[in-house]
Amino acid sequence: MHPFSIKAEFKLGFLGGGQLARMSAYQAYRFGIQTAVYRSGSTEEPMDFVTPFVSTGAFDDEEKLIEFAKSCDVVTLENEFLDSDLLKSVRDKSGTPMYPSPETFELIENKWIEKETFRKAGIPVAPYNLIKNQADIESFGKEFGWPFVLKSSKGGYDGYGNATAHDLESALAGFHKLGGNSGRDILAEAFVPFEKELAVMIARSKSEVIAYPCVESIQQGHICKTIIAPAQIDEQLQKKAQEIALKAAEIIDGIGVFAFEFFLTQSGDIILNETAPRPHNSGHYSIEGCVTSQFENHVRAVCGMPLGSTTLRKPVAVMENILGTHKRKSISEQVFNSLSAIDAHLHLYGKLDSKLGRKMGHLTVLGNDATTTLELAKKLGNEIFI
Amino acid sequence: MHPFSIKAEFKLGFLGGGQLARMSAYQAYRFGIQTAVYRSGSTEEPMDFVTPFVSTGAFDDEEKLIEFAKSCDVVTLENEFLDSDLLKSVRDKSGTPMYPSPETFELIENKWIEKETFRKAGIPVAPYNLIKNQADIESFGKEFGWPFVLKSSKGGYDGYGNATAHDLESALAGFHKLGGNSGRDILAEAFVPFEKELAVMIARSKSEVIAYPCVESIQQGHICKTIIAPAQIDEQLQKKAQEIALKAAEIIDGIGVFAFEFFLTQSGDIILNETAPRPHNSGHYSIEGCVTSQFENHVRAVCGMPLGSTTLRKPVAVMENILGTHKRKSISEQVFNSLSAIDAHLHLYGKLDSKLGRKMGHLTVLGNDATTTLELAKKLGNEIFI
Repeated sequence: MHPFSIKAEFKLGFLGGGQLARMSAYQAYRFGIQTAVYRSGSTEEPMDFVTPFVSTGAFDDEEKLIEFAKSCDVVTLENEFLDSDLLKSVRDKSGTPMYPSPETFELIENKWIEKETFRKAGIPVAPYNLIKNQADIESFGKEFGWPFVLKSSKGGYDGYGNATAHDLESALAGFHKLGGNSGRDILAEAFVPFEKELAVMIARSKSEVIAYPCVESIQQGHICKTIIAPAQIDEQLQKKAQEIALKAAEIIDGIGVFAFEFFLTQSGDIILNETAPRPHNSGHYSIEGCVTSQFENHVRAVCGMPLGSTTLRKPVAVMENILGTHKRKSISEQVFNSLSAIDAHLHLYGKLDSKLGRKMGHLTVLGNDATTTLELAKKLGNEIFI
Repeated sequence: MHPFSIKAEFKLGFLGGGQLARMSAYQAYRFGIQTAVYRSGSTEEPMDFVTPFVSTGAFDDEEKLIEFAKSCDVVTLENEFLDSDLLKSVRDKSGTPMYPSPETFELIENKWIEKETFRKAGIPVAPYNLIKNQADIESFGKEFGWPFVLKSSKGGYDGYGNATAHDLESALAGFHKLGGNSGRDILAEAFVPFEKELAVMIARSKSEVIAYPCVESIQQGHICKTIIAPAQIDEQLQKKAQEIALKAAEIIDGIGVFAFEFFLTQSGDIILNETAPRPHNSGHYSIEGCVTSQFENHVRAVCGMPLGSTTLRKPVAVMENILGTHKRKSISEQVFNSLSAIDAHLHLYGKLDSKLGRKMGHLTVLGNDATTTLELAKKLGNEIFI
């Protein structure tokens, strides 16, 4: 028998107050763990309504961050708009453990360092290079072909911070938009003609590591719209993606839950595209779809608990994002069918304001075959106005 | 398509801040619903750590209760220490809907009225009578035999407010202890020699009603210790218990989730024992055990949403209560195995102080057969010190 225990008033702090923190908080509560949030901005975030412990301040206010960390037993990250050096300082000065660690975060906060780290470890990534000027653009296009992708090396997500370089003109415009002219590091990545986009969540603690099923991600305008678990591809390919993800989590010594997004090419190559050091949209299906959700395993991993099984509860789970359809004070209309359909599970994040394309919630449908489950999820999702 | 919608900042208020409110709150959050709690006392309760909206006051402070109700879109009850006349007044003066309604609550807050209501509707209950004095005790014992049970007509739960009358002497002592000498209504109930104790949760909204599986309850010192879902009895008997529970919920026009506890006699009779107008310990297994938990359906019912499926996810679910083993600041020791066992789900309520026998948490194990699932749940539960 292992002497593991959970003490009263153990407090898990989140840097960032969005839906990922909120959904993690529900799981912390299940273990009697308290949560606290540090968030920026003056507008309320999803965490504000589910905890009494809300701190606000800038994400570069070291003093306030240290004060917050001192009020917690462990701190975790909800977003990527943070600086690893600052995080190190906050952790060291507060004495509060932080997972994922700033050392892990340092390896993926900058896309250039991330690519270098993974490439050197033998993980397949698309050809890339740093772009400083027009000459770099031209030579990258010459070597790897047009179009290619320009990425800001810091702070991008869901396609923000990306630009497609179709030709020299659009490349220069993209370079400018992403801040290349004002000294920002810009990365060029060769375009990968992919068959499908895949994702694997990994939960990793100091003593255990476990992979979630390989899922298929269907994007719409650079935003994840639908997830099908498991991916409707050969089992060997699923396994290959899981193995790469396990290796990638190991290389960055990640503690917590991590998302690894891949391109699957026509020739069966699996290429690592994006990494996120936290629960991720492509893992929301796991709340009802798996024995242990990504949020529960994130809480378990960062709080030092044993990890739980990632087995699927039914043969198929489909997650459909509910994106804002109006710019207005949010109201979720036409949710009746998604609430009454069998094994459909609606999640709304409690955001006060809706706007076009904003992630307002999601719904997960469990079923026995991919085609009907996907159809039902899309039908239910399309009915909702928010 | 039904025009049902969920508005931003919809707020569900709980009268009472214990674990039942807390576990309901997690489900409200999933729908983007906010929660608020009104609780008595100066010590913190489980809800305090999961919502920023905490009001404190006496449960008979009408003014404060009205103020609280006005801050909510709908109010629900977490315990039975309330008065239906006061609840009516709070609802009417605040204008905020309250479910279950005070009219429903009126029919079950007093055990005498409850028995009369159900008996007159043809629902089997044990023989009972009001006891005013020694002569009533003697004549009840003569008619229905010794031992029998004395119950305070208001405010009892988990065996508190009950006394066993083995003979005249213990009957008089019980009558005194329960307040019979100081004007409290005392009910005598014939002792039912039962084979098993059963329970059925019912979720009922204005337009729908649904029964949960009939479960078996194993008590230890008048406190529920273990629940086996479904009850290991003939399917016809399970169905009979569900039918009685559905009828009972109808008779009291209950909106929300209700627990009906039964005695199963050797001759196959099913006798209604206790009713609770809220989620109940005997329904905790449904969090992982059923497609829709009792807490989710309670939130759905009181907020006017459609109800969700109560189908079991696996053939068997066993819930084991985690009762305080020490009087101390709570710390949950030896939880490692219950966290790492496959399809075992630990829940701790975040109570700051433990004491012997206090309900501190529970764990649910899902499995394919009753014997091994029960054994595993008991083994894991017995390991934990708290």
